[in-house]
Amino acid sequence: MASVRIREAKEGDCGDILRLIRELAEFEKLLDQVKISEEALRADGFGENPFYHCLVAEILPAPGEPRGPCVVGYGLYYFIYSTWKGRNIYLEDVYVMPEYRGQGIGSKIIKKVAEVALDKGCSQFRLAVLNWNQKAIDLYKALGAQDLTEAEGWHSFRFEREAMRKLVGK
Amino acid sequence: MASVRIREAKEGDCGDILRLIRELAEFEKLLDQVKISEEALRADGFGENPFYHCLVAEILPAPGEPRGPCVVGYGLYYFIYSTWKGRNIYLEDVYVMPEYRGQGIGSKIIKKVAEVALDKGCSQFRLAVLNWNQKAIDLYKALGAQDLTEAEGWHSFRFEREAMRKLVGK
Repeated sequence: MASVRIREAKEGDCGDILRLIRELAEFEKLLDQVKISEEALRADGFGENPFYHCLVAEILPAPGEPRGPCVVGYGLYYFIYSTWKGRNIYLEDVYVMPEYRGQGIGSKIIKKVAEVALDKGCSQFRLAVLNWNQKAIDLYKALGAQDLTEAEGWHSFRFEREAMRKLVGK
Repeated sequence: MASVRIREAKEGDCGDILRLIRELAEFEKLLDQVKISEEALRADGFGENPFYHCLVAEILPAPGEPRGPCVVGYGLYYFIYSTWKGRNIYLEDVYVMPEYRGQGIGSKIIKKVAEVALDKGCSQFRLAVLNWNQKAIDLYKALGAQDLTEAEGWHSFRFEREAMRKLVGK
């Protein structure tokens, strides 16, 4: 079986990351909402004060195989702030290509995020999932996460640009 | 009617902010989850790379009134990163003391957050609300927000410290 490595993303991974972002959005049936570019991902994640951090999962070629490692999954996170608990992590996306699922790669990414969170003194990390994505829900619950929408009733709201413009009269 | 001012919080406001954080958590019936201290709020929000930003609403005394301004509400936010839209704002908390509601102070805070978001080139801002907090839901919707849990089915998940420790074997 091919071996998998989870490592921090480098700027040169942004093309692969964008490819996977688009695959994930397509799976979520929300591809039309993706407006990001590779250039924006490079600028926003690899400057002096990066807006996000990213892990990639890559399959390493077997010895003698005539190809380089191949990025098949990613986990993109950033630091947030809870007024109850202080600094925390939000895992914005976690994704593994369909043909590489069932090997524990998603769990490895999530475990690595938990390691970062504990190292940075965070008391929790959050993520969001679509209610029809039962496989992901089952995985997160099996790994120990709690569904806060179910348990406490939290709903996620969003103001779009048009709504914001109307609000401020612009 | 007393006049209201929305302004950026200063380090000296942290005592008031903590008082209001606790009031909000009590209203949300989740006060036992509040572990933050005034010292942490000072360190985390007012250092070189602040983890959060905060607006406060204060009531200004009428001319001749023998007291200073009084902080009666706050909005605490930070920057997040959408892999679809780039840099965005998350409004972690917005709260106005019960006796000062119905004067549009909450809307003023939200409007100010929208201004910041537009100024910083953000295409949206998000927040979360409990499903039984109908007044807040009605307000956010009236201001133009969309309930993503309702519209798209997003559920919020959380890994607590114990779950993270188990995950990483610590």
